[in-house]
Amino acid sequence: MLERFKEVRQRSLTLMQGMSAEDAQVQSMADASPLKWHLAHTSWFFETFVLKPGINDYQVFDRAFEYLFNSYYDSVGSRHPRAERGLISRPSLERVMAYRNHVDKQMAALFDTFNDAQLAVIEVGLHHEMQHQELMITDFKHALWHNRYALTQLAAQNSATSSHSGTSNWVEFSGGLKHLGTDATDSFAYDIEGPQHQVCIAPYALGKYPVTNQDYLDFIEDGGYQTADYWMSEGFELAQREGWQSPLYWCMKRYLQSGKAEDIKVMTWGGYRPLDITEAVVHISWFEADAFARWAGARLPTEAEWEHAAKHQDVGGHFLEDKLYHPRSLNDPNTQGQPLVAMYGDVWEWTQSPFTPYPGFRPAHGALAEYNSKFMVNQFVLRGGSCASAQGHIRATYRNFFHPQQRWQFSGLRLAQDR
Amino acid sequence: MLERFKEVRQRSLTLMQGMSAEDAQVQSMADASPLKWHLAHTSWFFETFVLKPGINDYQVFDRAFEYLFNSYYDSVGSRHPRAERGLISRPSLERVMAYRNHVDKQMAALFDTFNDAQLAVIEVGLHHEMQHQELMITDFKHALWHNRYALTQLAAQNSATSSHSGTSNWVEFSGGLKHLGTDATDSFAYDIEGPQHQVCIAPYALGKYPVTNQDYLDFIEDGGYQTADYWMSEGFELAQREGWQSPLYWCMKRYLQSGKAEDIKVMTWGGYRPLDITEAVVHISWFEADAFARWAGARLPTEAEWEHAAKHQDVGGHFLEDKLYHPRSLNDPNTQGQPLVAMYGDVWEWTQSPFTPYPGFRPAHGALAEYNSKFMVNQFVLRGGSCASAQGHIRATYRNFFHPQQRWQFSGLRLAQDR
Amino acid sequence: MLERFKEVRQRSLTLMQGMSAEDAQVQSMADASPLKWHLAHTSWFFETFVLKPGINDYQVFDRAFEYLFNSYYDSVGSRHPRAERGLISRPSLERVMAYRNHVDKQMAALFDTFNDAQLAVIEVGLHHEMQHQELMITDFKHALWHNRYALTQLAAQNSATSSHSGTSNWVEFSGGLKHLGTDATDSFAYDIEGPQHQVCIAPYALGKYPVTNQDYLDFIEDGGYQTADYWMSEGFELAQREGWQSPLYWCMKRYLQSGKAEDIKVMTWGGYRPLDITEAVVHISWFEADAFARWAGARLPTEAEWEHAAKHQDVGGHFLEDKLYHPRSLNDPNTQGQPLVAMYGDVWEWTQSPFTPYPGFRPAHGALAEYNSKFMVNQFVLRGGSCASAQGHIRATYRNFFHPQQRWQFSGLRLAQDR
Amino acid sequence: MLERFKEVRQRSLTLMQGMSAEDAQVQSMADASPLKWHLAHTSWFFETFVLKPGINDYQVFDRAFEYLFNSYYDSVGSRHPRAERGLISRPSLERVMAYRNHVDKQMAALFDTFNDAQLAVIEVGLHHEMQHQELMITDFKHALWHNRYALTQLAAQNSATSSHSGTSNWVEFSGGLKHLGTDATDSFAYDIEGPQHQVCIAPYALGKYPVTNQDYLDFIEDGGYQTADYWMSEGFELAQREGWQSPLYWCMKRYLQSGKAEDIKVMTWGGYRPLDITEAVVHISWFEADAFARWAGARLPTEAEWEHAAKHQDVGGHFLEDKLYHPRSLNDPNTQGQPLVAMYGDVWEWTQSPFTPYPGFRPAHGALAEYNSKFMVNQFVLRGGSCASAQGHIRATYRNFFHPQQRWQFSGLRLAQDR
Repeated sequence: MLERFKEVRQRSLTLMQGMSAEDAQVQSMADASPLKWHLAHTSWFFETFVLKPGINDYQVFDRAFEYLFNSYYDSVGSRHPRAERGLISRPSLERVMAYRNHVDKQMAALFDTFNDAQLAVIEVGLHHEMQHQELMITDFKHALWHNRYALTQLAAQNSATSSHSGTSNWVEFSGGLKHLGTDATDSFAYDIEGPQHQVCIAPYALGKYPVTNQDYLDFIEDGGYQTADYWMSEGFELAQREGWQSPLYWCMKRYLQSGKAEDIKVMTWGGYRPLDITEAVVHISWFEADAFARWAGARLPTEAEWEHAAKHQDVGGHFLEDKLYHPRSLNDPNTQGQPLVAMYGDVWEWTQSPFTPYPGFRPAHGALAEYNSKFMVNQFVLRGGSCASAQGHIRATYRNFFHPQQRWQFSGLRLAQDR
Repeated sequence: MLERFKEVRQRSLTLMQGMSAEDAQVQSMADASPLKWHLAHTSWFFETFVLKPGINDYQVFDRAFEYLFNSYYDSVGSRHPRAERGLISRPSLERVMAYRNHVDKQMAALFDTFNDAQLAVIEVGLHHEMQHQELMITDFKHALWHNRYALTQLAAQNSATSSHSGTSNWVEFSGGLKHLGTDATDSFAYDIEGPQHQVCIAPYALGKYPVTNQDYLDFIEDGGYQTADYWMSEGFELAQREGWQSPLYWCMKRYLQSGKAEDIKVMTWGGYRPLDITEAVVHISWFEADAFARWAGARLPTEAEWEHAAKHQDVGGHFLEDKLYHPRSLNDPNTQGQPLVAMYGDVWEWTQSPFTPYPGFRPAHGALAEYNSKFMVNQFVLRGGSCASAQGHIRATYRNFFHPQQRWQFSGLRLAQDR
Repeated sequence: MLERFKEVRQRSLTLMQGMSAEDAQVQSMADASPLKWHLAHTSWFFETFVLKPGINDYQVFDRAFEYLFNSYYDSVGSRHPRAERGLISRPSLERVMAYRNHVDKQMAALFDTFNDAQLAVIEVGLHHEMQHQELMITDFKHALWHNRYALTQLAAQNSATSSHSGTSNWVEFSGGLKHLGTDATDSFAYDIEGPQHQVCIAPYALGKYPVTNQDYLDFIEDGGYQTADYWMSEGFELAQREGWQSPLYWCMKRYLQSGKAEDIKVMTWGGYRPLDITEAVVHISWFEADAFARWAGARLPTEAEWEHAAKHQDVGGHFLEDKLYHPRSLNDPNTQGQPLVAMYGDVWEWTQSPFTPYPGFRPAHGALAEYNSKFMVNQFVLRGGSCASAQGHIRATYRNFFHPQQRWQFSGLRLAQDR
Repeated sequence: MLERFKEVRQRSLTLMQGMSAEDAQVQSMADASPLKWHLAHTSWFFETFVLKPGINDYQVFDRAFEYLFNSYYDSVGSRHPRAERGLISRPSLERVMAYRNHVDKQMAALFDTFNDAQLAVIEVGLHHEMQHQELMITDFKHALWHNRYALTQLAAQNSATSSHSGTSNWVEFSGGLKHLGTDATDSFAYDIEGPQHQVCIAPYALGKYPVTNQDYLDFIEDGGYQTADYWMSEGFELAQREGWQSPLYWCMKRYLQSGKAEDIKVMTWGGYRPLDITEAVVHISWFEADAFARWAGARLPTEAEWEHAAKHQDVGGHFLEDKLYHPRSLNDPNTQGQPLVAMYGDVWEWTQSPFTPYPGFRPAHGALAEYNSKFMVNQFVLRGGSCASAQGHIRATYRNFFHPQQRWQFSGLRLAQDR
């Protein structure tokens, strides 16, 4: 497990390759955080929940960090305002790296002495860090988007990619009483993934692949953004008010003149490049996913339907093959979209299920109780995992969640229908 | 059915007793509408969905009303901005009353000729009007709250009331596969109440009575509004930002000095009066209901649990007795709260269920498709019915819904627990 | 003076002809007030500053009115929030009219007994009421603009008018030491119009007529709204953000296709009618007036320049003729603009002078000290008087003032140049 | 002049001592800019207005900088949004320093060849850079204020200081026709400081010293912030809404319990330290300065009064001594306030004069026309110069200007009275 600890911690550093102290400082909206803050906060997690309670005379690295790098744990104390994380110029990135180093050394020195309860907290900490690694990618992508200059610089080093696509046909599932969630103790899961319980599911079908950019472009060209009928009322008002005409990060200027899909430019983590219509559509809100599905004569799947399909990979033949995660290199800057093969690792798929507690749910004890359960309002569950997700972070029962208006994650959809 | 039509239409006029043209004009927030607007819009409904499509050479009363009194039906056309309904000084209340009269006469003259499809739309229209009758009460109450002068005037005519209370004990329910929703064709239900389907429910208990003002005061005095642990993160931030310290309409000024519950004043539709601690707490948001339940070591019920209990009134003995609706006079201005007897008619009860479509849900056809289904996001279901609800509007499968932050309805809660 | 009191009070009632209780209720923005509120507030002024301090055992008409109808006099006590004046449905218009009647009777009965100090306050009260009469016109015009229905109704009764125009040439003035302001005791002036003092003025020229709609249209067609060079930085940002393309109340839709000035429609107090290009431009902000002047190779006059010209009507020949106020009937709904003859009564003319105290200024004593002097920040002086101004309200030293972004007054401009 | 060029440019670098790349990145509000941006923008000025037009085949350092580092010159082209300057992580601080170096080298190489017109632009550029040097201090101070951690670090290195105070008595000035502004060609002045013109001034008195913290504390303790009578209406509403109880950067928590002035802590550029009551009050808005003056039975001076006094230093004996600038070291972090000696260099003094053009004012030609003149609305003139001002930037005719609500400059006041 020490090895896994080192691996996960190392991945955060790998993501910083090519990043300057200034890059690590910027925060482009309240929803996002600076890279430096992610690096510090994930270390703060281990210091706060493992080292401080576990070592008798533990000397904290810096008492002020408790205030600066607490995200939302009210039971731990007060904290720096979320929207002002970009103002923390001091401590420097260098000092935050020293903090990481300090925490890692302390952890390594003590690893043999940890009991099961402590190892369980460490496990949470590693999954927590993997979540933040995904946010490091999506948050910095959002910051880049506000800096025309940085994009210009990056575009040069951006190599084109291509990927194949499948036709969008259906896989059938019979209904009945099914299990949802997990009580597993032999592998990690967050508290909100349990308890396992029974749900009634009616017969349904799922799209074999996520919706592609080509599919989504059809929706756009058919007036999808202008037709209230497809939309939730709140979503349509929001789209009108904000002037949404496409997913986030699409530049439509030339396309609107030429009408050619190749004139659509897409901002990726590595600069702008032409839209690849065979890739899965990403960076759409729940409102857009829901509207698209209605336009397509379908609907979003429930999370029970999704999880049932993911657990029964034999159904439908092509599902899941034998790789849980396609090894797209993390050093590859072309993380806009991915080939369409399986249910995991391409794109976070919006479901029609609001994020609520499973029946009989009990939050974890102590401060970790706050981890997930105090966000169970006004959010929808996403399933799957994206090109930015850490490999170890992907599983059939995993419940990701975001607000229906948020678009800066690698979020797309898969269609469902009643049968 | 013509009789029912006349009864429901008449009730809207009864609610206007004592109201001036100016009273009918005011709008205190975007969520609320002027009384005059409600009176016109409910008539517009029959003109638009029954008279215009049903009569060959129908002459609309006033072509401009289509724009003014459309609420949100995009398929019908554009509409007057919702937040500016209070600026419609013309047409006058008198002319709106003439509009009602015109529509009623046309409807009455044609009633014998209506076919089943038309009668079904009329049925929807009557339930629609009953919904707006409840809003007439809660919207005008909110407007009054902004006018110290009107309250002073009303307080004089406000007689004190008293009501008994029960102790807050539990009724037990066994779990299993249960039916949720209705496919009934012999009695009215909105599209969103179906289709009927099976759900798995674990054993649970429900509070025999809604939570009382005394219960809620205990929560306040125990620091409920200051303790983040009880709250959803969004709710706590909202409560802090808005300075919530009690339900809407409570005046705590004198109480904060004396500490005596009788010094709490409550604004009712008939002015301020002392808090009756035996009544059900009302005018709380979902955030407050959810926090209260957590403080009480319980939780909100799901809508499946609530509906199952309501359908099995024999369980628990005291439930539901034999009156579905206690005949509190609508002329009685003391509508702040009600005695605690049954599951219906006291208070709208927040559930933990987000408002989502039932499996297999298909919206009604045509413009009425917009009636409910385009609001299925960021809202929670309430069950029961309040002192302001029309009697014919209350049933076990009825799904009311509001946003988690809204407080101007007669909304309270009943506790639930796992068993 | 009793006659004048009656005349001025009567004019407020005359303005109410054709207005319903609902018309008197509406408030379309925080800057504007309902007609009913104006009617009550102007009566409150006499009750508060004349009757209450002047009569030993005076019985106030309604104690609550002190709170409801105080505008901004902190020394008098707390008050109803300005932005919520539209929610005062009670007291009714009928009761407010009774209030006016009560105050008028009390005033009339006591008129013989008033001493000089009291008469001076009454004088202020009459000028105060004349100010509010102008606001009754401009505020209700703004409310009408938000109600497409009312406009349609009114348009029918709107008769076309025509008016002649002059060419836009200059009148020259020599500079030197001039007097600004007044210490006059034989005629009324607000405190802020004094003390009289000397100012140095350089030689200058003023436009003989206010800028016309034709002039302003030239500015629009020359890209005036798109050219940052002409604008104050704050004004250009505001115009861009708000999408200003013309004065308030101009409807440009058909004109943008045809390019013909006659396709511009202008909302007047009596509904929409075609733009009369010979009339003075009105409903422009200081930002627009300032930008227009720069585009025209000129500038706005200072208030010293304006007042000097107005006091020396012989200069320039055509100035001021012998009528201070052209007797456009107040019953004439066509108050959008006016023929261009003199310096008074056509249009309020923006100056380049911020509203500041004259040297040696001392505010009036008591509550009336708050009348003007606490608004001396971020406002500009306007001179002249408009078609909506009461005749007795216009004089050479009068200093009207509004914020540079406000456009709902009858505000235009006259050009000035250095010589 | 090349020497002066080097000196001024060097001072910007001196201000960066101890600053990290992250410090140079942060932006705490839209009004403020990052240090890195100031460093780049001041170089952009010379490149854009001297090098590009002056050298035939000049190669710009980086074409993208034109977009990134233009502040508000519309005639130069579009620009990066002001509120998002903190997101420019790329280019790095290192690259911006290289940009400075490039510009400096080019300038030095060409200095001998510059003609008078070019030298005049360079002169503007140097004064422009001195303005930005003051903003570097005040902007970063504001950023620090949002980072509790950085303040803790800095406090350690903050040594206490003491300074003497004078009693607050008056200096008398006779009135008459005076000259305001300058036409000087032998020394630098901005366009807005001219043309010189005559103004009539009545006899007046000025406070010998700026208002001290002790004076201001008396105002606070006398309920100054709660008494509407002293305030402009807009200012009082703002102060109530924002909860102002003291100047910006004062921490009153302990003082509110103990009532002792020494318990007031003041945030300085070098961390928190106890309030020195003998220093000049700083970091107050025009609204507060104006209210203080009214409370003190005085008023703010006009800019004409201030300038007349500053030009006649013999009047009043103690004025101006013979140093225009007291040599407080720039390395001294205690820049909160300064000893009270003269009219220059202690504190920017709010006047009662709105920022308007002098009679006959003509903006400079070309892009530099935008330098000052498009901000002549809703701002007030400040005179003097503060502890953060560059020495060469201070003169009797200098007109600084800010909005009446802004408080993050070293802004205080000196009292005036009529005589």
